[in-house]
Amino acid sequence: MHNYKITVAYDGTRYKGWQSQKTTDATIQGKLETILEKAAGRPIAVIGSGRTDAGVHAKGQTANFYLQDAWEAEELLELFNQYLPEDIAVLSVKEAKERFHSRFSATEKTYQYRIHTGKVPEVFERKYVYSYGRPLHVENMKKAAEYMTGTKDFASFCGNRHMKKSTVRSIYEIRFEETPSKEFVSPYGSCGEIRILYRGSGFLQSMVRIMTGTLIEVGEGKRQPEDIPVILEAKDRALAGFTAPAQGLMLMEVRYN
Amino acid sequence: MHNYKITVAYDGTRYKGWQSQKTTDATIQGKLETILEKAAGRPIAVIGSGRTDAGVHAKGQTANFYLQDAWEAEELLELFNQYLPEDIAVLSVKEAKERFHSRFSATEKTYQYRIHTGKVPEVFERKYVYSYGRPLHVENMKKAAEYMTGTKDFASFCGNRHMKKSTVRSIYEIRFEETPSKEFVSPYGSCGEIRILYRGSGFLQSMVRIMTGTLIEVGEGKRQPEDIPVILEAKDRALAGFTAPAQGLMLMEVRYN
Repeated sequence: MHNYKITVAYDGTRYKGWQSQKTTDATIQGKLETILEKAAGRPIAVIGSGRTDAGVHAKGQTANFYLQDAWEAEELLELFNQYLPEDIAVLSVKEAKERFHSRFSATEKTYQYRIHTGKVPEVFERKYVYSYGRPLHVENMKKAAEYMTGTKDFASFCGNRHMKKSTVRSIYEIRFEETPSKEFVSPYGSCGEIRILYRGSGFLQSMVRIMTGTLIEVGEGKRQPEDIPVILEAKDRALAGFTAPAQGLMLMEVRYN
Repeated sequence: MHNYKITVAYDGTRYKGWQSQKTTDATIQGKLETILEKAAGRPIAVIGSGRTDAGVHAKGQTANFYLQDAWEAEELLELFNQYLPEDIAVLSVKEAKERFHSRFSATEKTYQYRIHTGKVPEVFERKYVYSYGRPLHVENMKKAAEYMTGTKDFASFCGNRHMKKSTVRSIYEIRFEETPSKEFVSPYGSCGEIRILYRGSGFLQSMVRIMTGTLIEVGEGKRQPEDIPVILEAKDRALAGFTAPAQGLMLMEVRYN
């Protein structure tokens, strides 16, 4: 058996996520598996590093699959990109060690969340940003984000109510990048676009979106940075903020040792 | 009468261009005029700095229109962006002198043409690049572009066969920007994306697209840089290259003195 590792980029707008329990056709995994099944003459399971929610994008999702026959990596790359729709692309194909597993071997993931805070709507990036349209108090958001970093129980930030496994995760870094905009000067000095980068060992279902929603509520002044430890301590989803829209979220990178 | 100057950004994918003789609904000008007519209670003509072809995008189209009543610029900006579809945005509104005319007063325009030369399709920018997918000989393209700069008769690069007015234009600069890509190293050392910036006094119908198509044919080795003066001299559209697809073209800026 040959184990192939691939990196995949997708515009998640049209899809029900990486994987869905109800349908395969409207999922990124389903699109990849359909191509492999035709090429290999049998069903091939594509294992993703993790599920991305419906509407979430990826610049560096990784996955792996096993093929009985040896294929040239280049040949597989061309096969995928020839048959994939224009909103999905396979960026690289590499033969991996047989024990490599895109989910279990992953040691670090980076997500990016983009919030458009400018008054004028963003035309070209509109499908990849959350069009918030108002300024946010970024300094307070940064303070709140500090309380979210470290190895902690993130049960309050987990979108799956029936999660039975551990909800402890390590968040290594939450970084803010601000793009100033010419058209609008906010009272907080923040405007244009805010990008929040989340780097961690792994993330629970909808965790980045709930963290972002909570940080936005801090940026609005509805919550204080000091509320975060209280929310974490409660281990109750109801205490955290709203789930920020999927379209602002992008899986940037999955790392392996 | 109050004369308002606006700058407009649009994703041209869904439109029949800035203006069309057949329809107003599927044009950017039509969308702006519909909003103004409702607000002013009478038809208002929006004058663009020039027509962009169907499918061409703009980050800095300019236009002007006259209103009988005085409006706050801010008020007009909000009015437009409230009712415009998500693929059009008004970036700024300013009251201008009565004699300001977005077309006749324009002294310089900049267009950008993006060619994706990487092997792996571009997912997120796919609607704003020409997906060429192979490397091009950029050094020869640069040499050819030098022959295209200056004040010249560009009749061979004019898409309008019935053009009766002067086809002389001044091209101040044609600049190349290359984005290297990790996934592919070409025999020419060029890969990823090529951006060509055209700055000039004004451009004829489809001129940037025909210039780009001709430059691509130079980059493919089908033509030599030294062919350009011959093409210009002939004043015959049939001698120039193909019209590069509209989707790679973006009107970046219109300048006024």
